[in-house]
Amino acid sequence: MEFHAQLAGRKEKETKSGKPYLEITLADSTGSLTLKAWADHAQYGQLSELKEGAGLAVDGQFTRNQWGIDGSPWSFSLLDPNAMQQLLAGDPATLARQNADYADIEGFVASLHDPRLKALCAHFLNVFGDRFRRTAAARRNHHARRGGLVEHVAQMMRSANAIAGVYPALNRDLMLAGVLFHDCGKLWENTYPESGFTQGFQLSGEMLGHIPLGIELVNKLWRDLQEGPEHESWKALSPSSELVRLHLLHLVASHHGTHEFGSPTLPRTPEAYALHHIDNLDAKYEMMKDAYAKANELAPGILERQFPLPSNLVVPLPSFVQSD
Amino acid sequence: MEFHAQLAGRKEKETKSGKPYLEITLADSTGSLTLKAWADHAQYGQLSELKEGAGLAVDGQFTRNQWGIDGSPWSFSLLDPNAMQQLLAGDPATLARQNADYADIEGFVASLHDPRLKALCAHFLNVFGDRFRRTAAARRNHHARRGGLVEHVAQMMRSANAIAGVYPALNRDLMLAGVLFHDCGKLWENTYPESGFTQGFQLSGEMLGHIPLGIELVNKLWRDLQEGPEHESWKALSPSSELVRLHLLHLVASHHGTHEFGSPTLPRTPEAYALHHIDNLDAKYEMMKDAYAKANELAPGILERQFPLPSNLVVPLPSFVQSD
Amino acid sequence: MEFHAQLAGRKEKETKSGKPYLEITLADSTGSLTLKAWADHAQYGQLSELKEGAGLAVDGQFTRNQWGIDGSPWSFSLLDPNAMQQLLAGDPATLARQNADYADIEGFVASLHDPRLKALCAHFLNVFGDRFRRTAAARRNHHARRGGLVEHVAQMMRSANAIAGVYPALNRDLMLAGVLFHDCGKLWENTYPESGFTQGFQLSGEMLGHIPLGIELVNKLWRDLQEGPEHESWKALSPSSELVRLHLLHLVASHHGTHEFGSPTLPRTPEAYALHHIDNLDAKYEMMKDAYAKANELAPGILERQFPLPSNLVVPLPSFVQSD
Amino acid sequence: MEFHAQLAGRKEKETKSGKPYLEITLADSTGSLTLKAWADHAQYGQLSELKEGAGLAVDGQFTRNQWGIDGSPWSFSLLDPNAMQQLLAGDPATLARQNADYADIEGFVASLHDPRLKALCAHFLNVFGDRFRRTAAARRNHHARRGGLVEHVAQMMRSANAIAGVYPALNRDLMLAGVLFHDCGKLWENTYPESGFTQGFQLSGEMLGHIPLGIELVNKLWRDLQEGPEHESWKALSPSSELVRLHLLHLVASHHGTHEFGSPTLPRTPEAYALHHIDNLDAKYEMMKDAYAKANELAPGILERQFPLPSNLVVPLPSFVQSD
Amino acid sequence: MEFHAQLAGRKEKETKSGKPYLEITLADSTGSLTLKAWADHAQYGQLSELKEGAGLAVDGQFTRNQWGIDGSPWSFSLLDPNAMQQLLAGDPATLARQNADYADIEGFVASLHDPRLKALCAHFLNVFGDRFRRTAAARRNHHARRGGLVEHVAQMMRSANAIAGVYPALNRDLMLAGVLFHDCGKLWENTYPESGFTQGFQLSGEMLGHIPLGIELVNKLWRDLQEGPEHESWKALSPSSELVRLHLLHLVASHHGTHEFGSPTLPRTPEAYALHHIDNLDAKYEMMKDAYAKANELAPGILERQFPLPSNLVVPLPSFVQSD
Amino acid sequence: MEFHAQLAGRKEKETKSGKPYLEITLADSTGSLTLKAWADHAQYGQLSELKEGAGLAVDGQFTRNQWGIDGSPWSFSLLDPNAMQQLLAGDPATLARQNADYADIEGFVASLHDPRLKALCAHFLNVFGDRFRRTAAARRNHHARRGGLVEHVAQMMRSANAIAGVYPALNRDLMLAGVLFHDCGKLWENTYPESGFTQGFQLSGEMLGHIPLGIELVNKLWRDLQEGPEHESWKALSPSSELVRLHLLHLVASHHGTHEFGSPTLPRTPEAYALHHIDNLDAKYEMMKDAYAKANELAPGILERQFPLPSNLVVPLPSFVQSD
Repeated sequence: MEFHAQLAGRKEKETKSGKPYLEITLADSTGSLTLKAWADHAQYGQLSELKEGAGLAVDGQFTRNQWGIDGSPWSFSLLDPNAMQQLLAGDPATLARQNADYADIEGFVASLHDPRLKALCAHFLNVFGDRFRRTAAARRNHHARRGGLVEHVAQMMRSANAIAGVYPALNRDLMLAGVLFHDCGKLWENTYPESGFTQGFQLSGEMLGHIPLGIELVNKLWRDLQEGPEHESWKALSPSSELVRLHLLHLVASHHGTHEFGSPTLPRTPEAYALHHIDNLDAKYEMMKDAYAKANELAPGILERQFPLPSNLVVPLPSFVQSD
Repeated sequence: MEFHAQLAGRKEKETKSGKPYLEITLADSTGSLTLKAWADHAQYGQLSELKEGAGLAVDGQFTRNQWGIDGSPWSFSLLDPNAMQQLLAGDPATLARQNADYADIEGFVASLHDPRLKALCAHFLNVFGDRFRRTAAARRNHHARRGGLVEHVAQMMRSANAIAGVYPALNRDLMLAGVLFHDCGKLWENTYPESGFTQGFQLSGEMLGHIPLGIELVNKLWRDLQEGPEHESWKALSPSSELVRLHLLHLVASHHGTHEFGSPTLPRTPEAYALHHIDNLDAKYEMMKDAYAKANELAPGILERQFPLPSNLVVPLPSFVQSD
Repeated sequence: MEFHAQLAGRKEKETKSGKPYLEITLADSTGSLTLKAWADHAQYGQLSELKEGAGLAVDGQFTRNQWGIDGSPWSFSLLDPNAMQQLLAGDPATLARQNADYADIEGFVASLHDPRLKALCAHFLNVFGDRFRRTAAARRNHHARRGGLVEHVAQMMRSANAIAGVYPALNRDLMLAGVLFHDCGKLWENTYPESGFTQGFQLSGEMLGHIPLGIELVNKLWRDLQEGPEHESWKALSPSSELVRLHLLHLVASHHGTHEFGSPTLPRTPEAYALHHIDNLDAKYEMMKDAYAKANELAPGILERQFPLPSNLVVPLPSFVQSD
Repeated sequence: MEFHAQLAGRKEKETKSGKPYLEITLADSTGSLTLKAWADHAQYGQLSELKEGAGLAVDGQFTRNQWGIDGSPWSFSLLDPNAMQQLLAGDPATLARQNADYADIEGFVASLHDPRLKALCAHFLNVFGDRFRRTAAARRNHHARRGGLVEHVAQMMRSANAIAGVYPALNRDLMLAGVLFHDCGKLWENTYPESGFTQGFQLSGEMLGHIPLGIELVNKLWRDLQEGPEHESWKALSPSSELVRLHLLHLVASHHGTHEFGSPTLPRTPEAYALHHIDNLDAKYEMMKDAYAKANELAPGILERQFPLPSNLVVPLPSFVQSD
Repeated sequence: MEFHAQLAGRKEKETKSGKPYLEITLADSTGSLTLKAWADHAQYGQLSELKEGAGLAVDGQFTRNQWGIDGSPWSFSLLDPNAMQQLLAGDPATLARQNADYADIEGFVASLHDPRLKALCAHFLNVFGDRFRRTAAARRNHHARRGGLVEHVAQMMRSANAIAGVYPALNRDLMLAGVLFHDCGKLWENTYPESGFTQGFQLSGEMLGHIPLGIELVNKLWRDLQEGPEHESWKALSPSSELVRLHLLHLVASHHGTHEFGSPTLPRTPEAYALHHIDNLDAKYEMMKDAYAKANELAPGILERQFPLPSNLVVPLPSFVQSD
Repeated sequence: MEFHAQLAGRKEKETKSGKPYLEITLADSTGSLTLKAWADHAQYGQLSELKEGAGLAVDGQFTRNQWGIDGSPWSFSLLDPNAMQQLLAGDPATLARQNADYADIEGFVASLHDPRLKALCAHFLNVFGDRFRRTAAARRNHHARRGGLVEHVAQMMRSANAIAGVYPALNRDLMLAGVLFHDCGKLWENTYPESGFTQGFQLSGEMLGHIPLGIELVNKLWRDLQEGPEHESWKALSPSSELVRLHLLHLVASHHGTHEFGSPTLPRTPEAYALHHIDNLDAKYEMMKDAYAKANELAPGILERQFPLPSNLVVPLPSFVQSD
């Protein structure tokens, strides 16, 4: 078995009885794994000196025991620049899905009627699109991968669009824009580097959190627009631009729904409650999807609890298919 | 101003300084009001002897002060049977909306693919349709009116249908049936009498609550079907009938989402989480709708907090309408 | 040292430095232990091929280190059918205690005055007695052993009987029947197989939990009785059978006492509160008993906290015994 | 209708439209009521000058409206010293019940085997018996009457005795002494004056609460015994006196069961948990008894929620009585 | 008794028995009171037509009954512009105290060493000083008066200064600036109009709350400074301006201490914890001060609980004064 | 590298693959470490027979791997009595700091004006000073070292003194005495032996906790004073001695601030709230100090969360220093 991966970490360790080894963390766009390299490995010296971030082609037989993954024998070579670029581009299936999701986001933005919200969303995609595409929706728990935020936002936009059809009194423009911006502060909290697969930590994310950062970003983009050519024509519009801005900020500020979950502001409009439930449903849905993929089966159809879900899971009921 | 209403209650009271009066509660399908009749009212004696449930045509000039509604002068006459029947039929606009909602429910049931779930839903509407149509979704807070449960279920079915479109892996049949049955125990907790506008209390509702009662009802209907002609043909179907029954019961048992809110069971499938959020969103939406209609304005666009919502409300942002 | 046990599980593992071994789980009626078999064990091959559930006579010298139990040297032979049957029958002392407890339960049932409750309890013991006797009261924490539910129910009946003597207004018949049925849903949540010592997982237990399952069981047994010969004579009794059924179901539905602990219904009668406290006390008492047996001593008379108890424990004060 | 009562309070008030009246609070051993005296009452002047605590014989026709109790016409005369003494002695039925309860407490104390605990309990009854007999178990909610603590302690002792029979490993001496002292700090938190029916407030009760005060009292009584003649002979006893004292204090310190309910210490022994549940059950039982007596019926058999109980109540199931 | 006040509100009401009156709310800088004007009042017509905000000199005899304050007879005249200006300036003692507090704030700002923080604070006082001086620290509970925020901030600065002396490692500059800005969002949540004594509601306060608004304000002022002349010279300073800004924003974002109390961010630096405790202490201290002034005495030295404090209060222990 | 330490513990262990070793715990006044001694160590036999508490001079080369600290080769010799005494005296820097802190405490006690409080504090230092100096402020989390309570109390006294300057109405004497006694119960909960570095467990600490023990200690010391010569002269003082005692006990009883954190009593005076916040701030400050010293850096300036703090930490902003 051969695979390509980036060296994401390396620690010098010893077994309980003193046998030294290197613990190597390898990552690609789909996740990471940790591998041991024993002192008698042919490339031990070379491994000890690799720079973090190096691209590797790894070849070998691997087994998993309760201590992690072990390979015997295994070897590696450095990736050439072409292969490295492909590695960084990520798993093609994931990439294709995220590209489709991003196109959906652009489509929803194009469908907005309110010229202020439409311009603001477009301005965001224009200026921060690249950073957006390499941001996760969370550090763990759900959509915790490069591009995860794009997937989360696109699915929430589809839900918001569907729910706006069911509740016609909801302001669809506001909800779609609210979905786009609700987690935008995570561009400074859960972002990946341009050439790497390890979520970093940013001081601003730690010290403010994504809700205040998101409010700051919306305000900054809004000020940009005020210096643009269309700004004059917006003064006559109803509802007023200032009211539109406040409602949008309210969605960002209140989307966790309650103080306990970190919203500085409680929802005060129907759109705020709708956004909160759409967000929560998608997060839970993805947690379950991850859990179904990873959890041990305790008995037929029953899977072991996966944090942060509160209980064991049951395999979903297959849809009934009419045979004929 | 003249209106028709049913006598829903009557208490003998006195002012602080000893002046006696009757406190009369009048109700129709849209709500109730409380009126004072002073001892010098021309029909005081007649009022004192009316039977609860009598239908009245009330005529007069009414004002509201901080003590409630007072009328001066006002009079009433008894409704003839025709007018009484009309009164019990309820406000035509509400009735029309509830009829449309009920038709939607029937349409969704007709659209189910799984023959077990489809038969179960149809059996429920057949046997308990009338009782369902005079049940509220709650004692207060949201949809607290005769027929409120039909409105709540119909809207949730529309949401479930929309969300199933966004998450194609969800089992649409299961979700729609789950919506229909999730609150069916309320037929013994929040039901209205056949000829009256006051929600009663049932011993079974008090002693078990709507979740255990709902599970009991689903099981009872399921046993009925097992004695029906199609039952034999269902034995070969996949997934098995027993698994379908368990998943449906699971949706009823877990729809409050957490123990704190009274679910004996925590959600263990994606459909259970989806149903929980669809339910919660519709309940909050209706609470807000009621609150916008009733709350005092504290300042332009700001309305006073209405229990059980957690904060003041803000008037929603009007949708932007392109002028041309 | 020789002992008899059933093979309850086997995993292939390796030490940190790559030495392979089998991790064997052996169980009998009093608990389970985990043993390592190294690759150089004389019966390693035979061990690798044993069927789960096999009965073994194990002989050897065992020591416990921080990694678990290790034996050197140890060997095993297969149990003959006789010895296997004895093993499955369980530890004689435990068995004798559970038999006495079961006889107590039968005695309490025989002492009931209300013919409906008496018949219902007897019907339960008749139909489900065997399953009841191999059910635990919980998956862990307290009475987590085959037959544990019988012990828990018998002790609670003794308490309920005693408390009914102290509070004569309490309905003793109702309380004793309530104790018998309060956890009966656990027959599908915490049951052991007929020939094994490992609690299984049932889909119905996962998807509904023992409270809804218990309500369903009581209702099923009740319907059985309605088809019986005495049913006609019960129609004249006071209180009515329907009221008796509701009160009994209420005890099952409310016995966890609060929503947070998973009751779908809050206690609404004195018997419901009494049952809740009697249950809680016995659970805590058994947790402490287990903890006293297992916990490390931190200092003379002080034992280390054992989950789920909230703090360190103190050795109980010995009863004062008059010497003379 | 005539009744005897003590003047427990008097306020000068006016109706909304300016009519002055006196609001008189009258109390006896069973409770209190509030009565209006209008300015035109024949004894208005005399009423205005009565001293608080005066004993009155009140005669008249009384009605209750939503503003309280009103009488027309009514009059009063001062009680003679004999009648006053009878009034202070309290309702004979209550008094008889409390006397029987007190005798039970003395009987349980006499039955203790541990000479230290027996002497301590007897010393408490000896020194603080009178104060104990005029203390309530709470300011409101349950046993909130002169002598209520005696009733609560006696019933808990009967329960503790019964439970010790069911769990023979429990230390019965310790539990009975623990019951006697668990709320003894309330002698400074919920006590009534020697000649009155209104619970006072004591600075020590406010500033420390009954748990620290109870610990202080047990320690004080214990020190008294150390100066007594038997002290020398106790030094040889096992368990040691110091250990007995600590266990007894532990029961006082932990009887609320959790920090949230104000225990500075969490239960660490089986007796501590048992005492906590016995206490809780008796408090809940009395809250229900009061609620059944006071609550409005919402429907046959369903009573309106009474604070601090969490829900509506249901009338208990009458015991089945064999007719023959 | 004569006093000057502003007409802050007027409602038409009736007594229970139908007698009409005006409920007049009068306010000055120290608080407000509600007065009834009966229909037979000599100036009833004039009162009905007064504009809200009018200044009145009120003269009469006033009594308080349980329904509020009533006066008989009373009259009023309109204030001349001079008197009106004096009224708006407020109670001289309060004004003097707030002026001294404001001077303290200016003094602390002048004492800062970090030129960025010093400039930012001065810029705030310069631009928003007037609005700051007419803002309360809360809508109710503590410092709920025009200028209350100045009092709260000044006292907290004195505390921060004192605590920085005790913990020399704390960054005094950062803490003092953090105190000045921690509640600055309240300038849009709890502000008073320029000529009135009634706290208004602002849409931005409702939709964002004071923490996001405060962050927005600090950022706005910071951008202003970046366009100023000193900005260039700051580039070389250490710590960097960006780090200073983040730490200051962190103090604003985290000052409620936990999510439950509405902080979007949890404290991550010692200064953040210190600020949280300094804030909390001053708020509690003022709640107690208000409570001591308002609460009923339940017994000597014991005062009735005042929301939101959790329990009854006890009169503080007077300081011991050495007599000589 | 050589260091002196006390043998605080020894366990016989094996590696996963069966290699035996001794796990040695060595402690000095600054903390403890755990070291492995393999069976081939030259002093293995001697190590196996050392008495706990022996003083050792350890010499060798040490490395830390993920399993703890290992040394190769290392040796030890027994300390002579002189060296042992020095070891027990502790780290000179810590000792000097604690001596200075203790002198501060004595200074604050000397500064009290109220003769009762001053005598009580002096009596405590006199009788329990030594035990106080070897007590920690907690078992873990903060000041968890011999003498930690002295450091905590001294710093809190400095804060209380500073805060009393800012809020002149606070009773400084009461606050300083309250600080001295607030945790004095920990002398039986977190004390170290006279010649050792391992916190023990005391039965009284487990069974009562430090708040009830602290109240008991204050009462005991108070009784001592009542037998002293000054007691007579105190009878005329105002406020009364009894009131002073109650207020001091109130500070001990309420210093955790809420029931959830184990206070049996809620704060009812300004001094009680002030003490609670001063305590909380110092505990949090020390937790952070420990965390900054121990936590892994996740990114520049960001440190990993350390229990019980609720989030990651950020390196504090350095104070600005004017260069010139």
